[in-house]
Amino acid sequence: MRILVVHGPNLNLLGTREPGVYGATTLAEIDDSLRAAAPEGVVLSFFQSNHEGELIDSIQGAIESEDGLLVNPGGLTHTSVALRDALLAAALPFVEVHLSNIHGREEFRRVSIMADVAVGVVCGFGPFSYLLGLRGLVEHIQGAEG
Amino acid sequence: MRILVVHGPNLNLLGTREPGVYGATTLAEIDDSLRAAAPEGVVLSFFQSNHEGELIDSIQGAIESEDGLLVNPGGLTHTSVALRDALLAAALPFVEVHLSNIHGREEFRRVSIMADVAVGVVCGFGPFSYLLGLRGLVEHIQGAEG
Amino acid sequence: MRILVVHGPNLNLLGTREPGVYGATTLAEIDDSLRAAAPEGVVLSFFQSNHEGELIDSIQGAIESEDGLLVNPGGLTHTSVALRDALLAAALPFVEVHLSNIHGREEFRRVSIMADVAVGVVCGFGPFSYLLGLRGLVEHIQGAEG
Amino acid sequence: MRILVVHGPNLNLLGTREPGVYGATTLAEIDDSLRAAAPEGVVLSFFQSNHEGELIDSIQGAIESEDGLLVNPGGLTHTSVALRDALLAAALPFVEVHLSNIHGREEFRRVSIMADVAVGVVCGFGPFSYLLGLRGLVEHIQGAEG
Amino acid sequence: MRILVVHGPNLNLLGTREPGVYGATTLAEIDDSLRAAAPEGVVLSFFQSNHEGELIDSIQGAIESEDGLLVNPGGLTHTSVALRDALLAAALPFVEVHLSNIHGREEFRRVSIMADVAVGVVCGFGPFSYLLGLRGLVEHIQGAEG
Amino acid sequence: MRILVVHGPNLNLLGTREPGVYGATTLAEIDDSLRAAAPEGVVLSFFQSNHEGELIDSIQGAIESEDGLLVNPGGLTHTSVALRDALLAAALPFVEVHLSNIHGREEFRRVSIMADVAVGVVCGFGPFSYLLGLRGLVEHIQGAEG
Amino acid sequence: MRILVVHGPNLNLLGTREPGVYGATTLAEIDDSLRAAAPEGVVLSFFQSNHEGELIDSIQGAIESEDGLLVNPGGLTHTSVALRDALLAAALPFVEVHLSNIHGREEFRRVSIMADVAVGVVCGFGPFSYLLGLRGLVEHIQGAEG
Amino acid sequence: MRILVVHGPNLNLLGTREPGVYGATTLAEIDDSLRAAAPEGVVLSFFQSNHEGELIDSIQGAIESEDGLLVNPGGLTHTSVALRDALLAAALPFVEVHLSNIHGREEFRRVSIMADVAVGVVCGFGPFSYLLGLRGLVEHIQGAEG
Amino acid sequence: MRILVVHGPNLNLLGTREPGVYGATTLAEIDDSLRAAAPEGVVLSFFQSNHEGELIDSIQGAIESEDGLLVNPGGLTHTSVALRDALLAAALPFVEVHLSNIHGREEFRRVSIMADVAVGVVCGFGPFSYLLGLRGLVEHIQGAEG
Amino acid sequence: MRILVVHGPNLNLLGTREPGVYGATTLAEIDDSLRAAAPEGVVLSFFQSNHEGELIDSIQGAIESEDGLLVNPGGLTHTSVALRDALLAAALPFVEVHLSNIHGREEFRRVSIMADVAVGVVCGFGPFSYLLGLRGLVEHIQGAEG
Amino acid sequence: MRILVVHGPNLNLLGTREPGVYGATTLAEIDDSLRAAAPEGVVLSFFQSNHEGELIDSIQGAIESEDGLLVNPGGLTHTSVALRDALLAAALPFVEVHLSNIHGREEFRRVSIMADVAVGVVCGFGPFSYLLGLRGLVEHIQGAEG
Amino acid sequence: MRILVVHGPNLNLLGTREPGVYGATTLAEIDDSLRAAAPEGVVLSFFQSNHEGELIDSIQGAIESEDGLLVNPGGLTHTSVALRDALLAAALPFVEVHLSNIHGREEFRRVSIMADVAVGVVCGFGPFSYLLGLRGLVEHIQGAEG
Repeated sequence: MRILVVHGPNLNLLGTREPGVYGATTLAEIDDSLRAAAPEGVVLSFFQSNHEGELIDSIQGAIESEDGLLVNPGGLTHTSVALRDALLAAALPFVEVHLSNIHGREEFRRVSIMADVAVGVVCGFGPFSYLLGLRGLVEHIQGAEG
Repeated sequence: MRILVVHGPNLNLLGTREPGVYGATTLAEIDDSLRAAAPEGVVLSFFQSNHEGELIDSIQGAIESEDGLLVNPGGLTHTSVALRDALLAAALPFVEVHLSNIHGREEFRRVSIMADVAVGVVCGFGPFSYLLGLRGLVEHIQGAEG
Repeated sequence: MRILVVHGPNLNLLGTREPGVYGATTLAEIDDSLRAAAPEGVVLSFFQSNHEGELIDSIQGAIESEDGLLVNPGGLTHTSVALRDALLAAALPFVEVHLSNIHGREEFRRVSIMADVAVGVVCGFGPFSYLLGLRGLVEHIQGAEG
Repeated sequence: MRILVVHGPNLNLLGTREPGVYGATTLAEIDDSLRAAAPEGVVLSFFQSNHEGELIDSIQGAIESEDGLLVNPGGLTHTSVALRDALLAAALPFVEVHLSNIHGREEFRRVSIMADVAVGVVCGFGPFSYLLGLRGLVEHIQGAEG
Repeated sequence: MRILVVHGPNLNLLGTREPGVYGATTLAEIDDSLRAAAPEGVVLSFFQSNHEGELIDSIQGAIESEDGLLVNPGGLTHTSVALRDALLAAALPFVEVHLSNIHGREEFRRVSIMADVAVGVVCGFGPFSYLLGLRGLVEHIQGAEG
Repeated sequence: MRILVVHGPNLNLLGTREPGVYGATTLAEIDDSLRAAAPEGVVLSFFQSNHEGELIDSIQGAIESEDGLLVNPGGLTHTSVALRDALLAAALPFVEVHLSNIHGREEFRRVSIMADVAVGVVCGFGPFSYLLGLRGLVEHIQGAEG
Repeated sequence: MRILVVHGPNLNLLGTREPGVYGATTLAEIDDSLRAAAPEGVVLSFFQSNHEGELIDSIQGAIESEDGLLVNPGGLTHTSVALRDALLAAALPFVEVHLSNIHGREEFRRVSIMADVAVGVVCGFGPFSYLLGLRGLVEHIQGAEG
Repeated sequence: MRILVVHGPNLNLLGTREPGVYGATTLAEIDDSLRAAAPEGVVLSFFQSNHEGELIDSIQGAIESEDGLLVNPGGLTHTSVALRDALLAAALPFVEVHLSNIHGREEFRRVSIMADVAVGVVCGFGPFSYLLGLRGLVEHIQGAEG
Repeated sequence: MRILVVHGPNLNLLGTREPGVYGATTLAEIDDSLRAAAPEGVVLSFFQSNHEGELIDSIQGAIESEDGLLVNPGGLTHTSVALRDALLAAALPFVEVHLSNIHGREEFRRVSIMADVAVGVVCGFGPFSYLLGLRGLVEHIQGAEG
Repeated sequence: MRILVVHGPNLNLLGTREPGVYGATTLAEIDDSLRAAAPEGVVLSFFQSNHEGELIDSIQGAIESEDGLLVNPGGLTHTSVALRDALLAAALPFVEVHLSNIHGREEFRRVSIMADVAVGVVCGFGPFSYLLGLRGLVEHIQGAEG
Repeated sequence: MRILVVHGPNLNLLGTREPGVYGATTLAEIDDSLRAAAPEGVVLSFFQSNHEGELIDSIQGAIESEDGLLVNPGGLTHTSVALRDALLAAALPFVEVHLSNIHGREEFRRVSIMADVAVGVVCGFGPFSYLLGLRGLVEHIQGAEG
Repeated sequence: MRILVVHGPNLNLLGTREPGVYGATTLAEIDDSLRAAAPEGVVLSFFQSNHEGELIDSIQGAIESEDGLLVNPGGLTHTSVALRDALLAAALPFVEVHLSNIHGREEFRRVSIMADVAVGVVCGFGPFSYLLGLRGLVEHIQGAEG
């Protein structure tokens, strides 16, 4: 099973950016912890970009090679219909994750433009959101396959 | 560590109710799987009711005895300020879980009246949402304690 | 054919409560008139409660034993997603009735949270709304059976 | 007692139009079933038009000769203030009926511009809505007379 | 100077319809009072219909022959884009009049779909609204001509 | 019969202010034309202020001495609940007038906070709006007296 | 004069719950202070429940025995049409009180679903709100009786 | 293949009406250009009316005889649920066309009440919109047939 | 302890203005009853104006000399950000009072632009609202001092 | 005459992506069919990108060399003010096209942020939308030139 | 070049009022710094009032004598159509300034009722906003003159 | 002191694009004028891109090297949460500038998604907005440092 982890804009700054909100863990550390936590037989790839277009390209590129997507769309969560379209076009199961609890922040962060077509959503657990999301995604794919 | 699992209205029907939406697992099976998955040292209690007042009573009753709450408020998610007040009053960390992806259903199911004061939210993974929520809650409590 | 008649909060006060709006007939008289008007072979049961949870319990309890529901949700019409969920879970045909014409009262009484999943709605005819609703429900069940 | 039954735009197509939504009964059959079901002493007249103006004319024409109106305004339900004005001007008791459950269809079909000044509303029972509406109207007129 | 007076749906009932709101004057009496009050050299024609289409036809027919329009669109005031289009197409100065004060009635009567392209609006003076509207219209045409 | 004409903020600038919108007539000329047009036996007083408080004072002062008010509230039309309260407290019949057609200007000028308690409204005829409003007011008072 | 004091959900926790918002006084202390402050001849009863249905039952039960109600509906203030219906049905004068200033908290706490049918509302004075509310209610009942 | 071209209210005035917006071409010229442009084997009929009812009648009349509809609903585009119902009842493929770009005009012209059930929409090309719409409709019917 | 009582626009008319809504008590009588009811050691001043600017001046003037404000902003309650700013700038505790129950009147009277920064709000008790407000304010100041 | 065809995000996937919605034609086939259908003398260029910035660059690059633009903005239709600005800055006539009927899909797809400044819009005809759009654009440019 | 600086309600309190929001500079100091910073040949006048009417009077008074206005409308920014009308009537170029960043405060402070007719807006720089606004205004007037 | 000037999409076209709105100055000229106007000791860098991702990259790149940002986000002002996130993450003081007065243009240009976290905003002065913004930013940084 192959899964692409997609990090949206500004997530490359994790660990330095607004630590009061996002904590002190870096993106590399998150990726490492995901690799460590991945069940045997689950191969992870990683992609981060601040460019909506590159994120769309990477999602399109995953159509052939991947079995699922773990996506933190960052600030594009709330605005990008094009990213939603890419996820729909990819037709891969994906899980949406957020470090912070988006329900407890600014009003405009409470609406996700792509959550309704995700398998599920996990938010609020800091870096641990990624691990929960990965487990949920793997379970979902195995369930669909089984 | 003690955690109370709170199931809201109609969840007693799980496994029979709209299986196309909620799957075939019963609530007892969910509780069993949670018990099985709980890390050592984590003691779980369970409560289900169709009565908002009883749910509030049980949350109030947990203040002294429990360290956290895992809550699926069911249809009260979207309407009960009183339940939100009970959760705020309890001042225990809680995680909100949903079997289905509430972002992909009727419009009125997309707003949770208590998610903003939760630690985090997990939805869309069927019964597995509970397991992910439990793991996230345990991690959160240990992090806060550590 | 078995039908459960469900009366929501405050309907126990009928005949005394705001007679200018609801008339002078008591709930017992309504139940009697329904019994008298029921076609042969149609057995009616009755339940009234001011507690949302008890109403949900009674609807769940009807799943095995009843063929349809005649429901006046009272003030819960406009607020209770949990009651809607119970009606959906029961998966029994139900008719929603109101004594007064809800379209001609306060704005917040014009929206029913469960009417869209009912067989039909009857309102405005006073106690006679129940009789019309019963006839419509029986007709519907016979049509579905025939 | 004399009652005019008013059918709005497109109801002449009943039986052929979207049978999945409206069923296979024709308008003539509905009129026949109403005639058959009318209590003794209740004389029915019928009028159908696709023209809002003709519907208004017919309602105005009923002022002198009729005791009540049974109205299915069709698509004008949601848009015609002029029809509402005609009904108000006629000052006859009227019942609004709909074949389908308007609460379970498109959003714009959930608002009736004239229901608040009706005696009552019946919807969702297919052609049987007319019969229930007729009974409710007759009951109402007798109650007012009695 | 030639002016067409256009009366919309239900105004033919004036004098009988909701006298508490509209008074006891008939439409013929209003027309007579307008004729009596018209300044010398001002020729009035009159048209009433309950049919939106006929009102549009009459406005189109006025393009060649008339210098202005005095319009009470009745219930179409709030809904008819087609009538607005006819008035725009006619490109004749027109004044909108209402017997009752539309600002003090139901919410949906406070918005006119054509008032913004009128010369002016007069409402609330009962039949006298027409006379004031006529005077305003004549003044406007003379001013534009002068 | 005594009538107070009340001009709101900025109307003292008439004739110089935005002539493209309001024309070249000055406020003094409007007052003169009103005096000239007033029927015999109708005594007019005039008051203009840019101060909401002074306008309220003048309306209160009219309670004993006047029979009606002709009011152009200017920019306060859309914002002043206190002015509305003064008009209600005065309990004198008043007519609201506007030089321009408020329906054809900025969105926020389409709502009047006091029109619903006026006898009637006249707008769009330039200075002539005042004369029509005066005639309507006199007619109204005479009708009420007669 | 007999008055029932009704405390809604979670108010049993007063003194322990969010003391930063609600202060350190317990519900028993509030009840005591009310008893102490009640004018001679005013007999108080008290009821608290976390169950909407029980609150409705207690209000219905007061119809025969009480002269007025002092109600803090807690979180139900903003959501319960059924509680409003019970208060309307009881047809007893009632005063709505809140410990905190509901205008200065979350947006959804600013709308009360029953305040418009109360005699009056008092909020923001902590436990003292109850005493003010009691005095206002007694004054109102005496005024109505006197 | 037979296609009915339906022109709504005021389109009979084309060529004279607001030429700045709609151009100088008459409706007859548009019909001629459509006839000239129709592919071999495509037979066109034409109908224009200012009456909503007649437009509904003509659409109903097309059910038996026509294969598709080319419709410019004019001002009814934004208001007529009854016309939408007629188009749904006809169950013929139809294309909605507009001379002007409805997205660049008044706000209320940006919403079409029937576009969502059309095959497609063409707007903004003046009379050429009809030709493009015809080509698209023919292509669609041939595609569906092929 | 010194307290300034501030009465907004039109309150000088109390006792004569809409007695059905506001009762027959005059403003002088309210001031007298406040003086009579003030606890020993509490010195009251009074100010009424129909001018927003004068009300702001008086509130600014109270900064040095007063310990609290008792404010009935009248019609400015719903519109004056400048008055809110003055109250914020004064940084004195203030209580907002209303004679009538603002929740049960016109929609636009239900929103107060300054209530969220008040200590508390009292409404609906007629002149008695002032006495309750005064007591609450004194209690609040003593509590803050104590 | 030179025309640039601009395809927005995800359109490179055409033919593989959600064929139930978009059909089986590839983007290359669409480009070929446009080339084949282009009138003599009309030279087409093509550009597709998933990057908003590159789309803006290409539109800016067209200012000197092209006479018009045929644009399918894909998911950016509903969100990109920057793309709108580029189109406005280019000051070239452009036609907006969509494969699917955007009026019949998700609510957020019904609003285009740039349609109001287009020459016209064509949607719903699948790949044929492009051909109709091209014809309309050519016609428009020739008309403007002629 | 002559410029009038207009300070709205409560700005006389600057330096004492909510220093956390507005800083410690007094209004006199701001005026002094403006005088010091004014380019040679630019003569400044100053006016502050808490009275909307006086502010309007001062703006009207500037029509003859001044070349531009530098305006901080304070709390009237968001509510006063009459002030907007005065600024429009004055037909002098004006710049709107605010000490605080109005975009980062309460929701109702984000909308200015007059900014759309200003030359420009400067906010967020504390007292320095005035200096920037003055420079922008001078530049604008010189540009218009040049 | 080092400041990065960031120009968003389409600003590279300045001087050619819609000169009626944006004037004839080019972006290079603006940069030159900023360099000329920069106080001694203030070093400016410049960056323009039509790509949201590149703008985010440049803002992230400024974290180490710059002391503040002068940002004209162009069309992204109203839509880009990702850009807002980058500005928040950078945690550098920034000033938002616009050439045109955004309050006086299309409705959707009146809301900035990042202005609330800026130091301040300057708009409406054409290229001079940048100079005012620079001065304000320098002043702010010096004030914070001083």
